[in-house]
Amino acid sequence: MRDLVDIGMGRTARRAFGLDEVEIVPSRRTRSSKDVATTWQIDAYRFDIPLITHPTDAIVSPATAVAVGELGGLGVINAEGLWARHADVADKLFALVSAAEKGDDPGLLVAELQRLHAAPIQVELIAEAIRPVRESGVTVAARVSPQRAAELTPHLLAAGVEILVVQGTIVSAEHVARDSDDDGEPLNLKRFIADLDVPVIAGGVHDYRTAMHLMRTGAAGVIVGYGHCEGITTTDSALGIGTPMATAIVDAAAARRDYLDETGGRYVHVIADGDVHASGDIAKSIACGADAVMLGAPLALAAEAPGQGLYWTSAAAHPSLPRSRVLPVAEDVEVDLKTLLFGPSTDADGLVNLFGALRRSMAKTGYSDLKEFQKVGLTVRA
Amino acid sequence: MRDLVDIGMGRTARRAFGLDEVEIVPSRRTRSSKDVATTWQIDAYRFDIPLITHPTDAIVSPATAVAVGELGGLGVINAEGLWARHADVADKLFALVSAAEKGDDPGLLVAELQRLHAAPIQVELIAEAIRPVRESGVTVAARVSPQRAAELTPHLLAAGVEILVVQGTIVSAEHVARDSDDDGEPLNLKRFIADLDVPVIAGGVHDYRTAMHLMRTGAAGVIVGYGHCEGITTTDSALGIGTPMATAIVDAAAARRDYLDETGGRYVHVIADGDVHASGDIAKSIACGADAVMLGAPLALAAEAPGQGLYWTSAAAHPSLPRSRVLPVAEDVEVDLKTLLFGPSTDADGLVNLFGALRRSMAKTGYSDLKEFQKVGLTVRA
Amino acid sequence: MRDLVDIGMGRTARRAFGLDEVEIVPSRRTRSSKDVATTWQIDAYRFDIPLITHPTDAIVSPATAVAVGELGGLGVINAEGLWARHADVADKLFALVSAAEKGDDPGLLVAELQRLHAAPIQVELIAEAIRPVRESGVTVAARVSPQRAAELTPHLLAAGVEILVVQGTIVSAEHVARDSDDDGEPLNLKRFIADLDVPVIAGGVHDYRTAMHLMRTGAAGVIVGYGHCEGITTTDSALGIGTPMATAIVDAAAARRDYLDETGGRYVHVIADGDVHASGDIAKSIACGADAVMLGAPLALAAEAPGQGLYWTSAAAHPSLPRSRVLPVAEDVEVDLKTLLFGPSTDADGLVNLFGALRRSMAKTGYSDLKEFQKVGLTVRA
Amino acid sequence: MRDLVDIGMGRTARRAFGLDEVEIVPSRRTRSSKDVATTWQIDAYRFDIPLITHPTDAIVSPATAVAVGELGGLGVINAEGLWARHADVADKLFALVSAAEKGDDPGLLVAELQRLHAAPIQVELIAEAIRPVRESGVTVAARVSPQRAAELTPHLLAAGVEILVVQGTIVSAEHVARDSDDDGEPLNLKRFIADLDVPVIAGGVHDYRTAMHLMRTGAAGVIVGYGHCEGITTTDSALGIGTPMATAIVDAAAARRDYLDETGGRYVHVIADGDVHASGDIAKSIACGADAVMLGAPLALAAEAPGQGLYWTSAAAHPSLPRSRVLPVAEDVEVDLKTLLFGPSTDADGLVNLFGALRRSMAKTGYSDLKEFQKVGLTVRA
Repeated sequence: MRDLVDIGMGRTARRAFGLDEVEIVPSRRTRSSKDVATTWQIDAYRFDIPLITHPTDAIVSPATAVAVGELGGLGVINAEGLWARHADVADKLFALVSAAEKGDDPGLLVAELQRLHAAPIQVELIAEAIRPVRESGVTVAARVSPQRAAELTPHLLAAGVEILVVQGTIVSAEHVARDSDDDGEPLNLKRFIADLDVPVIAGGVHDYRTAMHLMRTGAAGVIVGYGHCEGITTTDSALGIGTPMATAIVDAAAARRDYLDETGGRYVHVIADGDVHASGDIAKSIACGADAVMLGAPLALAAEAPGQGLYWTSAAAHPSLPRSRVLPVAEDVEVDLKTLLFGPSTDADGLVNLFGALRRSMAKTGYSDLKEFQKVGLTVRA
Repeated sequence: MRDLVDIGMGRTARRAFGLDEVEIVPSRRTRSSKDVATTWQIDAYRFDIPLITHPTDAIVSPATAVAVGELGGLGVINAEGLWARHADVADKLFALVSAAEKGDDPGLLVAELQRLHAAPIQVELIAEAIRPVRESGVTVAARVSPQRAAELTPHLLAAGVEILVVQGTIVSAEHVARDSDDDGEPLNLKRFIADLDVPVIAGGVHDYRTAMHLMRTGAAGVIVGYGHCEGITTTDSALGIGTPMATAIVDAAAARRDYLDETGGRYVHVIADGDVHASGDIAKSIACGADAVMLGAPLALAAEAPGQGLYWTSAAAHPSLPRSRVLPVAEDVEVDLKTLLFGPSTDADGLVNLFGALRRSMAKTGYSDLKEFQKVGLTVRA
Repeated sequence: MRDLVDIGMGRTARRAFGLDEVEIVPSRRTRSSKDVATTWQIDAYRFDIPLITHPTDAIVSPATAVAVGELGGLGVINAEGLWARHADVADKLFALVSAAEKGDDPGLLVAELQRLHAAPIQVELIAEAIRPVRESGVTVAARVSPQRAAELTPHLLAAGVEILVVQGTIVSAEHVARDSDDDGEPLNLKRFIADLDVPVIAGGVHDYRTAMHLMRTGAAGVIVGYGHCEGITTTDSALGIGTPMATAIVDAAAARRDYLDETGGRYVHVIADGDVHASGDIAKSIACGADAVMLGAPLALAAEAPGQGLYWTSAAAHPSLPRSRVLPVAEDVEVDLKTLLFGPSTDADGLVNLFGALRRSMAKTGYSDLKEFQKVGLTVRA
Repeated sequence: MRDLVDIGMGRTARRAFGLDEVEIVPSRRTRSSKDVATTWQIDAYRFDIPLITHPTDAIVSPATAVAVGELGGLGVINAEGLWARHADVADKLFALVSAAEKGDDPGLLVAELQRLHAAPIQVELIAEAIRPVRESGVTVAARVSPQRAAELTPHLLAAGVEILVVQGTIVSAEHVARDSDDDGEPLNLKRFIADLDVPVIAGGVHDYRTAMHLMRTGAAGVIVGYGHCEGITTTDSALGIGTPMATAIVDAAAARRDYLDETGGRYVHVIADGDVHASGDIAKSIACGADAVMLGAPLALAAEAPGQGLYWTSAAAHPSLPRSRVLPVAEDVEVDLKTLLFGPSTDADGLVNLFGALRRSMAKTGYSDLKEFQKVGLTVRA
């Protein structure tokens, strides 16, 4: 079937698919989960599982960044979030959680997050937040927005950040600006990356073209999407912009292939950030071509999550156009982070044992590593 | 994919899409919201935002028409509604709202609206309603039905109307009548417009052909659709008639292009009236080719809205076949009109900061004016 | 788009559409409702509206058959229902309604109907039921099943039936039987009809082929579908058999056209029986090619309906495999039959003023009679 | 329509259909239910109805296996379930049911099942469970997993098993293993079957290729799917693996045809295990090409079911990644097994009289045996 449809006279739109519209088909000999490798390496950093945390304060505190790292993934601290603005984040979060428990309306919780984010960023607070991560020995990563990347990055590097995540809801390689005082000096990502010694993961991108542009900036990894999850309004209802994740990942993987060819061998990682509701969606993300997944809401089930059962993305704190709710996550599951990632589970919905399930999905379909698994057969519902 | 499907032997139907089936794809360099223009001009009238109000008494009083105008849009008073029939509209609305609060059944509220609309139109009341709008200095617009256009228009012009809206649920350039006493003399829109000195916006139309016919009448703008919104039964369940808005807008834009060519340069504006639930749908309407949007239910959230939390379209008052419910709108948002249009917002669903969101959608996808934004890439879900 | 899809290797299925998947497109000059004719004629019988009642005791008593006839439609008495088996139907219905009000479970209501239908048919009761209809002067119609047609028809004709409806959930022109004592002598519909002096309407059929076969039996009208309505399980979940009504009507209309050609002019009416939830579905049925609609559940809203707010089809009384629930119909609408058919209405959902809405749908799309309206443009949602 | 869709640049997925997306079309002469044969034979074993029970303790006890056999189907005891591990299964089930009635959360019920399955398998308990089945004279069948097939089968054969079911959620003809101590010696199904004197039914498979491979092992029957049912998370959300059953059955039937050709006449039965919610889905399974259905949840309505209103599949007891909930089944239906299979019914949803409905579906569409009925026409909704 052609991938363009006429939506009216003289105008076509492209058919696109979300992760929930694709399914994996087993068509090979099964193998043992033990014979499956889920390791993933970006630049010099090697991980046991293809997991990066979505940089939201709801799931990543300095302590959970360490825990995620020790369990084989990469925790990313938001360098523009609460830990960057407040010395007493635990108290602030406690107040937010208390308000949520009183059934306060969603707008009030967003307003509270906005208020908390109106406090200035203090570079010494960021450094303090990063210190325990660096000291733990796990890989240190932090996220900045394109707007503040130039300003904050030196401090992050000084604090020990080894992988820099430059992330906004929609990020392009260049930003058009009419004059220099537009949002401060706009970031030229290519020049910015060229000047850095650490690998940069950047995004989100939403199609082949922007993925390719971002790859050409020298990024080590490109993030596809922006944390879409059940109940979180990201860009959809406010901006009309959509990111059907299956198609977006496939397209970014095509850009990766073409860029590899164009450069004679530079492999830029595709990191899928969105539409993951259960462990099966992690498998689908890889199956569509992702090298790793950025997880948000699914990690909010962990007992260690700073949001204590609440979830939001950074977009919730935008001062004039918030695009994420503050969501309660399922209350009937409470597990520690290790169990959440590796089981055992008593949950039948794919919410627990997230990476054990990935391993089993690969084993059941007969694939032994992530790169191979990107070729597994897919179906779409009619 | 071809745009026709066989629905059975020897009969085809056209595939058509609603706004909620299309999504915008960002594929360019981002830019700053500040570098984006949302201005719109029809005839000699220039507006900061591409907003026309749906002419229902639920959202447009003389006062809100002024407010909308001062905020950069165009308020349209319904010249056949309550302000045209009652001296004490505030009391009537208060009674309606009180009945709704008592949980009266939807049929009773419709019946009450029908009763209120059974009172005769008094031209002096219309003049009185229009006066403050004229005096405020904003552009003055009023709506008549095709049936009463000939009778009421002279009074509207005398009262100071600068843009005339001739609007019914479905309006055609000509109306077939067997004899002259059919609903009074049927309106020949072409002759009617030719005799007027003010620009006319007419509709609703639902396909290329009727859009083209209406453009040929000399209308300055053509309205596509008729106020479809969540929970409002417009034509669908009663008449079996549907207006998948994405397709209808695209088709009307095709008519605009062809008519421009046919006339060697006459540009007739396409105004989308329907399927807007959140700010993202405004962006999608423009993206499909609309020059401006006619907004109804989304404006009912404003604290200033005369319906005080209720919404209905004119079709609710039809004496024998009402085709709009009287709907409560979301109660947990209450904002003033200015905030509703321009933020700031604490709502994450795109209900507030409607035109700030449009501006941001354009910026994130790299477009700097509305006309250009009509070319942004679109996807449809499979 | 081709109308066949591969559902797997070596197996195709046909794409088919329900009425709720099609919508009517207005693309002509509008006209006045007054200039629209909804008259319909089958054989020598002429009706003001294209309405036949679904022959269920829930909506058709002798009195409502008269009322429907006087309002311009055709009421059909079920000659194998309660009026054929009990002298005191009112009491039986009262007991059923009382049980329903006590919240008895659906299975118990079905069981009660089964029990009521286990009583033997008494031909004198049928005659008694038909008498007031005959005496009123309206057209007299009754329904028999294929199984009992041979036995009951002579009595029906003697009682004054002018149009005979031979109706089961699925009826074919011939019925395969291994031996003569299979369900009694199977009905050869062609021979049966040839021997009758009154026109026969027969069905339901579900595709072109069975429609064509039934047309060739000499039937004056062929019924497509079998009373599908929201909440009524007809054949779907029990038998796996489906009747996407838009496609089925279009196909039967194709059979009508081909049979007309084959016979050099015999026009067999296509009567749509199913998927009508609101007035718009009546318009859609005609738009797909139906000559008339058979209405069930929508008529249960009438204050005069014998089911007093309950609805079921004959299939509910099957002794071993009931395929219709006993459904409560919407309680918040109560209107007399005349208002239900012709308005005025205070309901915005197309439940009231069923044929005024059809007239308006035709007027708004510019068609002046039913036959023409069968050509109106249609869209399907993507 | 081609069966591949581009889901993004350079990546296709196959379009696939579930049973609920297909419907049967009647297009032949109807016949009497009495003239319809639902008999089915696999190897030397002949059954009145094409029914195999899904081997879950929720529906199959020794007693119900006998009852199913006496009613004409094949009951399959799970040789790795509770009867294989506990002497007092009734008490264990009573505790589980009591916990469920207390509203315990789903995770606790799964945890309890996990605990019950942690007890070791005792071959003498299996033998004891099988004895009454053997003694009753009905065909004796038991299920083992591929992992334990080699170990348990000798005991099963000694106990009198006549048909062996080797079943896991996803089973392939061979299992890749890096070394011999991987899960014990992996099962080579071909060698295993060659050494047995009894017919083997094996699965589940999910596509043409794995079905073909399994047929080549010498299996007498191949199971398609794994017990998908409403509310049961099988592989979907945890593994991302899906089995659109209509397509999977059609594909397995294609493999059956090709294997028949390849071997010059070996007919391997296709047994559909999943997506059956009501009797219509049994008809659809056969219509898609299945020779028989494996039923789980629909049988849990029987008063005799050991789960006493609860349902789960074996996958619920997986120690680290359970993929089935423990589900309450509809409480408002309670019937004995015989009535569940053959009626009479007072339920209008196809939950009761499962095989009477199959017979009627075949009769209404004019087919007289199951093999013929595999060719009945199908539609898909657009």
